[in-house]
Amino acid sequence: MIKKYTFGNPFFTGAVVEDIKADNAVVPYFTVNTQNGISFEYIMHDKDIVYGLGEATRGINKRGYVYDSYCSDDFCHMETTKSLYGAHNFILIEGKECFGAFFDYPTRLTFDIGFTKSDTLSVSAEKADIDLYIVEGNSPLEIVKEFRQLIGKSYIPPRWAMGYMQSRWSYYTSDAVREVANKYRDADIPLDAIFLDIDYMEEYKDFTISKERFGDLPELIDEMKQKGIRLVPIIDAGVKIQDGYDIYEEGLEKGYYCVDKEGKPFSAGVWPGLTHFPDFLNEEAGLWFGLKYKALTDLGIEGFWNDMNEPAIFYSEKGIENFYEKLSEITSGDKSVDNYNKIKDIVNSLQNSQDDYNSIYHNVNGKLVKHNDIHNMYGYKMTECTAKALEKLRPEERTLLFSRASYIGMHRSAGIWTGDNFSWWSHILLELKQLPALNMCGFLYVGADLGGFGCNASRDLVLRWLGLGIFTPLLRNHAALCTRDQECYQFENTEDFKNIIELRYRLLPYLYSEFLKCATEDKMFFKPLGFEYKDDEIARATEDQLFVGDELMIAPVYTQNAIGRYVYLPEEMCAVRLKKGGELKFITMEKGHHFVEVPLNEVVFFIRKDKCIPLANPALSTDAMDFDTLELIGYKNAEYKLYTDDGISTDLSKIEIKNLEN
Amino acid sequence: MIKKYTFGNPFFTGAVVEDIKADNAVVPYFTVNTQNGISFEYIMHDKDIVYGLGEATRGINKRGYVYDSYCSDDFCHMETTKSLYGAHNFILIEGKECFGAFFDYPTRLTFDIGFTKSDTLSVSAEKADIDLYIVEGNSPLEIVKEFRQLIGKSYIPPRWAMGYMQSRWSYYTSDAVREVANKYRDADIPLDAIFLDIDYMEEYKDFTISKERFGDLPELIDEMKQKGIRLVPIIDAGVKIQDGYDIYEEGLEKGYYCVDKEGKPFSAGVWPGLTHFPDFLNEEAGLWFGLKYKALTDLGIEGFWNDMNEPAIFYSEKGIENFYEKLSEITSGDKSVDNYNKIKDIVNSLQNSQDDYNSIYHNVNGKLVKHNDIHNMYGYKMTECTAKALEKLRPEERTLLFSRASYIGMHRSAGIWTGDNFSWWSHILLELKQLPALNMCGFLYVGADLGGFGCNASRDLVLRWLGLGIFTPLLRNHAALCTRDQECYQFENTEDFKNIIELRYRLLPYLYSEFLKCATEDKMFFKPLGFEYKDDEIARATEDQLFVGDELMIAPVYTQNAIGRYVYLPEEMCAVRLKKGGELKFITMEKGHHFVEVPLNEVVFFIRKDKCIPLANPALSTDAMDFDTLELIGYKNAEYKLYTDDGISTDLSKIEIKNLEN
Repeated sequence: MIKKYTFGNPFFTGAVVEDIKADNAVVPYFTVNTQNGISFEYIMHDKDIVYGLGEATRGINKRGYVYDSYCSDDFCHMETTKSLYGAHNFILIEGKECFGAFFDYPTRLTFDIGFTKSDTLSVSAEKADIDLYIVEGNSPLEIVKEFRQLIGKSYIPPRWAMGYMQSRWSYYTSDAVREVANKYRDADIPLDAIFLDIDYMEEYKDFTISKERFGDLPELIDEMKQKGIRLVPIIDAGVKIQDGYDIYEEGLEKGYYCVDKEGKPFSAGVWPGLTHFPDFLNEEAGLWFGLKYKALTDLGIEGFWNDMNEPAIFYSEKGIENFYEKLSEITSGDKSVDNYNKIKDIVNSLQNSQDDYNSIYHNVNGKLVKHNDIHNMYGYKMTECTAKALEKLRPEERTLLFSRASYIGMHRSAGIWTGDNFSWWSHILLELKQLPALNMCGFLYVGADLGGFGCNASRDLVLRWLGLGIFTPLLRNHAALCTRDQECYQFENTEDFKNIIELRYRLLPYLYSEFLKCATEDKMFFKPLGFEYKDDEIARATEDQLFVGDELMIAPVYTQNAIGRYVYLPEEMCAVRLKKGGELKFITMEKGHHFVEVPLNEVVFFIRKDKCIPLANPALSTDAMDFDTLELIGYKNAEYKLYTDDGISTDLSKIEIKNLEN
Repeated sequence: MIKKYTFGNPFFTGAVVEDIKADNAVVPYFTVNTQNGISFEYIMHDKDIVYGLGEATRGINKRGYVYDSYCSDDFCHMETTKSLYGAHNFILIEGKECFGAFFDYPTRLTFDIGFTKSDTLSVSAEKADIDLYIVEGNSPLEIVKEFRQLIGKSYIPPRWAMGYMQSRWSYYTSDAVREVANKYRDADIPLDAIFLDIDYMEEYKDFTISKERFGDLPELIDEMKQKGIRLVPIIDAGVKIQDGYDIYEEGLEKGYYCVDKEGKPFSAGVWPGLTHFPDFLNEEAGLWFGLKYKALTDLGIEGFWNDMNEPAIFYSEKGIENFYEKLSEITSGDKSVDNYNKIKDIVNSLQNSQDDYNSIYHNVNGKLVKHNDIHNMYGYKMTECTAKALEKLRPEERTLLFSRASYIGMHRSAGIWTGDNFSWWSHILLELKQLPALNMCGFLYVGADLGGFGCNASRDLVLRWLGLGIFTPLLRNHAALCTRDQECYQFENTEDFKNIIELRYRLLPYLYSEFLKCATEDKMFFKPLGFEYKDDEIARATEDQLFVGDELMIAPVYTQNAIGRYVYLPEEMCAVRLKKGGELKFITMEKGHHFVEVPLNEVVFFIRKDKCIPLANPALSTDAMDFDTLELIGYKNAEYKLYTDDGISTDLSKIEIKNLEN
């Protein structure tokens, strides 16, 4: 059961698709205080777990920290980081009481979950304009399902987007892309997509293509497609200010950009230099921008990633002006250390500054709305506009689409990757912990930059990360400028990579089937153990294992130099071990604690009792795979309900359900 | 057996105390290349473990990363940080072959331990002037013992310095210190020392005391001592440049400061503003500085911590000059973003800049030596000078002394704390991993800033950190400016803190005895499991448990919201559980894997088979403890060899050894 409680005049975010009438009764569970802005307080019991918050730092259990829900470009995020790229305000309390709460509020919202006071959960916002949804049910899974129904069906990508994908900032030329494809093919490692980061464009101008470096893009697209490899270009939020650049000029003429207080287009510096931000909260402007993707879909492009849409701001035009003004004030004084420190402060305060977010305005149905009041909706609305336009541009086929910034509601339009991360072992575990939380909030097509975006990756890091990555719907290896090359073929003994990535392809019938099931039935693809074993204290406290679909449990290795790891089995399961060369070994393991050895070139996962899963033969790309010839592994006499379709059609009525018996 | 191999003309560091003649034979194990500087390459076998490197990031097993041995002030250190505050060039390879290697080289030395190529260990330096010591023995423990004999006996602190200590940047006034003492006493929590951070000084001038805020320091020292609490002031490396400041003037007159290329005292900005660095490589200058501690020992001060001695440099006078010069060049151009970026670059390049380290010179026996060539010796020599002077100032009693920067050799003079860290759960585990590595390099009196220096700590973090901290010789809770107060009494239910800290005091007879044993017999206080169980693959791979002395094993909880953790027992042990209220429960646990529940207010540790340990009754300070009335816990009929003395005397012949029987 879901009840809605409305305070003040909330901004309509569109996160929720069901029209629920606000309840006039007193809000249950929470003590509400509207003295200063608004705050909701809940006293947690000793053993309560607080789940949720989607893309946030810390644990599956969010207790013990303070989170700021505010889309932020923070590529060096640590365990004390409070905000990441997405803002996902759903929490689920499970323990003495069990309920969900969604705070539909499109800007900064603070969740102090037992940090300041161990037993106190406090959710607070600056303005008392908020819709609160309380979701009740008999179990966490039931509550999530209800919540997911409230927010609408999740995005389904084309099946090829569940293949292995390679990215880098940047493959600078068509030939660099060819080289990646060839080297993967030479190493016999499956690959379904190569990503084009910002350098495929002409001066980072959206919807342009560098003539010099990608002059033959149409041919390249065809050539790659013949190898079963799609190209996926990036689209950034900001439109470069440049006379003669048609899109810039058109947007300007039509008044489609975000403006400043005076109504002049707001100018922010990002990769292309100064840009204007399309006003995605203005539906007309959004659709206009979305239809520009046609320049690329016309060439045969079938997927996109939307980036920099928090929006990230390196500096604003105003910010630079103010900077020089203050600088000249300071330098008119003495050449002292004090003044040096002042300069240091101002020079470092320009990026993603609150001043800028407070100076941008949107045109929402003719009314000016301050950006900061709806900050968390920008990337969401950009991506929603993209999705709507792509439905027009490619009505028959699903398009791959994911975004960096997001808010609940965007899950209907696209997936997300968890943004710029680091080649840190701790970021493997962070990804694992984020996955179920993202699922709760509707985001099913999710994954992290495998191998880590920033910093240098080592061979073992990439291999171990694959041990988790091969189970994530979005499986993309991506690395930043100036970091070590981390394509699988860059390391010794590529057959180890081939073997593990081939396992991903063998698992695809299962993973894709579970994905379809979860998307069409509002289920979770990744589940914390406690969601299925509510009364098992060990399962509830397990922070490094997940259920993948209804049949599998994973327990990846995420520490360096480990020879294995502890695994908790809340019930008997069948352990499946991928050996060198691709052989699968099966062993039944009893309920309880186990130390499982996992050499660097092996992967171990678990089939739940009395379940089985379908495997296919691997191929070098999903296009080349035979999804009809399946082998079942797992428990004898078990059945599996296979969800399948052609992998590409937007017509979901084509999904077939087949009963398979082992 | 130890062999020495000399390349070029190594700078004499004094790290080694035994005079070994260089061997002319070919270096064993390593392939040496002297083409570009010097590099030593060793091909690692699959199961080899590389131990060592003292205060470094990452694992007990250092494989899989690149480390730069270069004393660095990096308070936000992450898993990809390459340099920390100390530089400890000893590694121990254990596996197919087993040997130790000490690279006596006082500036940047790079250890690529299987990062670039999984099987290749490469140690490289810019200049081929290096002494390499190869240490062979039958086991890791034997090798460590030999190495420790080579580098000389470790520092032993007074026993009170193994009590619980509280610090903060800063307790600004005498009354603030009194408040800390009173609140600890009110909460009945033992406390042996309160630290005075930089604000006790007048304008951060070494050996001065703020009249306004600490005018009654002599009385405060006495008052605290009566409560069993010592005050421990900080001493920073830089001497403030200020006319009329006697120490500054004296140092200038006598030519005791580091100089620039022209021979003028080098001016670097640190907390006091511009300072000169005493030239600790000049023996006379070092002793002069060391004897200045008299200003504080005369007041009854019995302990010090030396800080900022990498040396950390916020900016240099020259750096600021260059900055303003470049700034004026840039600002004479246009007010463009390009120029803003240039300003950003130069404004952020001043701190700990390589240019500055290359511009400082030392007077070593009349010869000018570039600082960067001996960078890692600065904090070491500062602290050695301090220790030598303190031997003169307080010849009868041991003085507490520890330092931030260090090099092997300094372990004879003082302990170290592991520098500024963060209130991160991962920094609990990092500390655990550093402890045995530090012991290998001679540093026995060690510990991290408990609760974390930077960022805000939560109650559970401090409690769990105590679960490790109560076993570390140096046990100090310390926090930075602008962070949340984290003294134990700041949190709810202080009896939980009291209970765990009292356990530390109960364990003191054992911990102190083991410390004396390790210091006098060149043993390790903290040992990785693999050091005792060389043929046990699980023990060898265990990265989150340690032996503490010869009798105990610890397995602290270091993840948030955990209800317990996995523990591996390489043999049967007796698990000791501290319950609420102080009761100890004992249970024998068999060899193998266990999930051990550990509620937040409990601590579990393990007594090894057929061993026992002595416990004392706790008191509010070590002064108030009765170290003669001991109780033995553990296995029946076991014996314990107790090392004991008066806890303070510099005369080590007073150490008594008693056989205790359970």
